[in-house]
Amino acid sequence: MRTLVLIGHPDLAHSGTQAFLQAAAGALTDADEWDISAQGVPDSAEILRLQGEMRRYDRLIFQFPLYWYSMPGVFKQWLDTVWTTPFVSGRPGEAPPLAGKELGIVVTFSQAQQDYRLGGREHFSLSELLRPIAALGLAAQMQLLPIFPVAQFGYMTERERQHLLVTYAQYLSLPAGAHFADRAQWFAAWLTQHASAHSDYAAWAAALTAQQEQLADLHDTLAEMRREEDDAL
Amino acid sequence: MRTLVLIGHPDLAHSGTQAFLQAAAGALTDADEWDISAQGVPDSAEILRLQGEMRRYDRLIFQFPLYWYSMPGVFKQWLDTVWTTPFVSGRPGEAPPLAGKELGIVVTFSQAQQDYRLGGREHFSLSELLRPIAALGLAAQMQLLPIFPVAQFGYMTERERQHLLVTYAQYLSLPAGAHFADRAQWFAAWLTQHASAHSDYAAWAAALTAQQEQLADLHDTLAEMRREEDDAL
Repeated sequence: MRTLVLIGHPDLAHSGTQAFLQAAAGALTDADEWDISAQGVPDSAEILRLQGEMRRYDRLIFQFPLYWYSMPGVFKQWLDTVWTTPFVSGRPGEAPPLAGKELGIVVTFSQAQQDYRLGGREHFSLSELLRPIAALGLAAQMQLLPIFPVAQFGYMTERERQHLLVTYAQYLSLPAGAHFADRAQWFAAWLTQHASAHSDYAAWAAALTAQQEQLADLHDTLAEMRREEDDAL
Repeated sequence: MRTLVLIGHPDLAHSGTQAFLQAAAGALTDADEWDISAQGVPDSAEILRLQGEMRRYDRLIFQFPLYWYSMPGVFKQWLDTVWTTPFVSGRPGEAPPLAGKELGIVVTFSQAQQDYRLGGREHFSLSELLRPIAALGLAAQMQLLPIFPVAQFGYMTERERQHLLVTYAQYLSLPAGAHFADRAQWFAAWLTQHASAHSDYAAWAAALTAQQEQLADLHDTLAEMRREEDDAL
């Protein structure tokens, strides 16, 4: 799985959220990253080069803070310039260059996640607000991954940040629709690989591997209970 | 009705559609226009000045070509900069500065209008794709006007362009929810005012005024028939 994260942030250097996510991606994944706000206005040769580079990946991630309910202007301007019509829709009689690849969205925002729903403070869901990206993905014949929302990073506890670290790295690395067992296996491998970084990692990895079957059962039961709870709302 | 049209187009000078709309607005309305792509990156004093200017209008119109299913980056970047959080949402305990004003959207695109619907070539409706603007209008407590779509201007006949000219000018000038009688009256007044421009204008204005009641009846009947036809689809 070759993943490229396209980060569009008007002030990347001063974003704690983005710094955290970049550190997570660097430590836990093989994903590449582009800071597209630093690319300036590419000329036509540079546009072709960037398009060629993007075609080498299996998964592209749009990563940005939500500005007025959509991507920041700096990201949109880059898309308007670099994602030309032949690059998205293909030339007549040819498949679109990105057809079959995956498109993920990592969106950060300072509101609570439940604000984004019918009757919530922001009225619309993220799925509704980010529909232009869904339309772009459809035009390019890409497979859309579920949105990965990062709400109120500034208020997260250390434990929540650890959870974000792992789920974000998995969003970048794991096959789409990975089951709990895949996730546990991925995490065990990562813990083993980084055993020298923390005295407990090796033991956790061993426990994860040994108890994988019981953990998967437990996970399914919990997921079932959560579904029943949601249905009761 | 004081209307300000905010035009965000990366290449305004070479857009035939925008030139046509600008000419229509200039000839038929008192609306003011800003070419926001020409404003560059405003500093904080300039931002405050622009905000003060916008507050003087009753109706703001976002006018732009659809780029990848949303507004062009140049427009979004201007919004991200000039529409600050206090300008949109108001300061704590105060009403938003734009509360109660109207927000219109004039969107131009090269596809057929019926491509933008469920099962159509572009999959989503304009109402779905432009939801971020609806969310922005809600945050600012503005009244959203129905979208004014301009599809395939390049293929329009002279007659279709004349119709566009009038309906666009009305979109900028007439009160929201204006009935047919208001529209006819507006058009009659405009024909009278511009009687010197065309030998038939004065006669048309007289006919419009004299037959206003019959025309309104005819319009209602046609509208009713159209509704029944739509229901049958």
